[in-house]
Amino acid sequence: MEYPSITSRRSPVAKAAAALSASAKERRERRQFLCEGARLCRDAALSDMEIEACFFTAQARETYSHYLEPVLQVCGQAYEISQPVAQLLSDTRSPQGVFCQCQWPGTLEGLAGFAPQGPCLVLENIQDPGNLGTILRTAEALGRFRVFLLGDCCDPLSPKALRASMGAVFRLALSWEPSAQRLMKLLEGYGYKTHGAVPDKGAVPVTAVDFSQGLHGVLIGNEGSGLTEETLGLCTDRVTIPMGGRAESLNAAAATTILLWQMAKGGEEG
Amino acid sequence: MEYPSITSRRSPVAKAAAALSASAKERRERRQFLCEGARLCRDAALSDMEIEACFFTAQARETYSHYLEPVLQVCGQAYEISQPVAQLLSDTRSPQGVFCQCQWPGTLEGLAGFAPQGPCLVLENIQDPGNLGTILRTAEALGRFRVFLLGDCCDPLSPKALRASMGAVFRLALSWEPSAQRLMKLLEGYGYKTHGAVPDKGAVPVTAVDFSQGLHGVLIGNEGSGLTEETLGLCTDRVTIPMGGRAESLNAAAATTILLWQMAKGGEEG
Repeated sequence: MEYPSITSRRSPVAKAAAALSASAKERRERRQFLCEGARLCRDAALSDMEIEACFFTAQARETYSHYLEPVLQVCGQAYEISQPVAQLLSDTRSPQGVFCQCQWPGTLEGLAGFAPQGPCLVLENIQDPGNLGTILRTAEALGRFRVFLLGDCCDPLSPKALRASMGAVFRLALSWEPSAQRLMKLLEGYGYKTHGAVPDKGAVPVTAVDFSQGLHGVLIGNEGSGLTEETLGLCTDRVTIPMGGRAESLNAAAATTILLWQMAKGGEEG
Repeated sequence: MEYPSITSRRSPVAKAAAALSASAKERRERRQFLCEGARLCRDAALSDMEIEACFFTAQARETYSHYLEPVLQVCGQAYEISQPVAQLLSDTRSPQGVFCQCQWPGTLEGLAGFAPQGPCLVLENIQDPGNLGTILRTAEALGRFRVFLLGDCCDPLSPKALRASMGAVFRLALSWEPSAQRLMKLLEGYGYKTHGAVPDKGAVPVTAVDFSQGLHGVLIGNEGSGLTEETLGLCTDRVTIPMGGRAESLNAAAATTILLWQMAKGGEEG
């Protein structure tokens, strides 16, 4: 099959797609994002993302035909693009040459429709897109945690976050919520126990929490400064990771992995 | 105090330092590496790294004086450098303007002097310097694991790995060893049980291993392909992380965090 082609970097269609890759503001205002890479685009299609347009180079159409197939079946428009246009759209040095322009996932905004069905993870003011993506990937791997992005988190739909998440963004129930008051009240109303993670030896060791009973949420704060005092004040308690080595040197993603693992196992221990 | 200054990017001293930042081969051949950033340079000094030379901009000398002080006390040479020279040495876009040229840590080569004192971590063919650095940081935080880099791991002294490790490279006992046969024989000789991590539901769940008795080592393989068959064949057993979600999507650093955490806690569970 023949597709319309875009060979100029001045094409308005290509420029509009590139802007989505480059700018969080563009994504927010247009309620769209750009997804890059053969596997990630296939994952978007298989996860029922609404795909407005797909872009691929002639080379990519050959190399990644099995990834492209499900995308071409569901996308609104498809364009064959030249290598320079692929470079324009890409966030990487050696683009695979496959891109999708998608609508924001419906769940991403607001708390409407939240059903208290299991453990949840609240991330406050996470700044690094690689960290955010990795954490989302782990949250999916260990049990499909419900995830809330609180305050001023970086954008989970940026190219770096999408890449690090390996598509978990498409499959997790994930909501952005600016207000700690509103979110914590909602969780409390459903009977959640909320555990704020702090690097503080006086807090409850996470190994002493019985996650097997009731509903639980863990809260993780910014990479440098942790949870805000406001949010900590709204938590049921404060938990910490007891460590044998140098306490200060566990990064946000590693700390989150341990907390999610403890929750997933459900377990209090000796 | 006045220090000799380097203002030209053609300075042989600056070029020699920059080469250490850019090339693993240079580091290996000259048995030196370049450390960037005020905090990392201070950590190198406080960890008894042998510092041949320190480089700083006038701006950095003011801004980071408390970090620079311990470095200047122990370094062989110190140079004030211009902003363009700082750019030449730097791996980042906005350099802090503090660098140290250091000798390789003595422990890094060979297995001589290995004393079986606790749990160890073996990393085989880890390719991403950010992953490697993060794993080393976690290995330090959770209990100062003895770490072996097996086969063709990326360089722990590259700028990216150093940065992600937050200086853990300076403080951990860390050895490079190309031969799985030699390493596994050594560990076996000391009575270590060695657990090869695999994403395989048929393997022993890590929650069923009793790490509290005897000496244990976990082995983690390459991000894409896992442990080699040769190395797996030399392990006491194969362990896996039981997961509620999508098993394939736990990255190497997250998987390692969970395994180290289980070892650090020492614990078998229900």
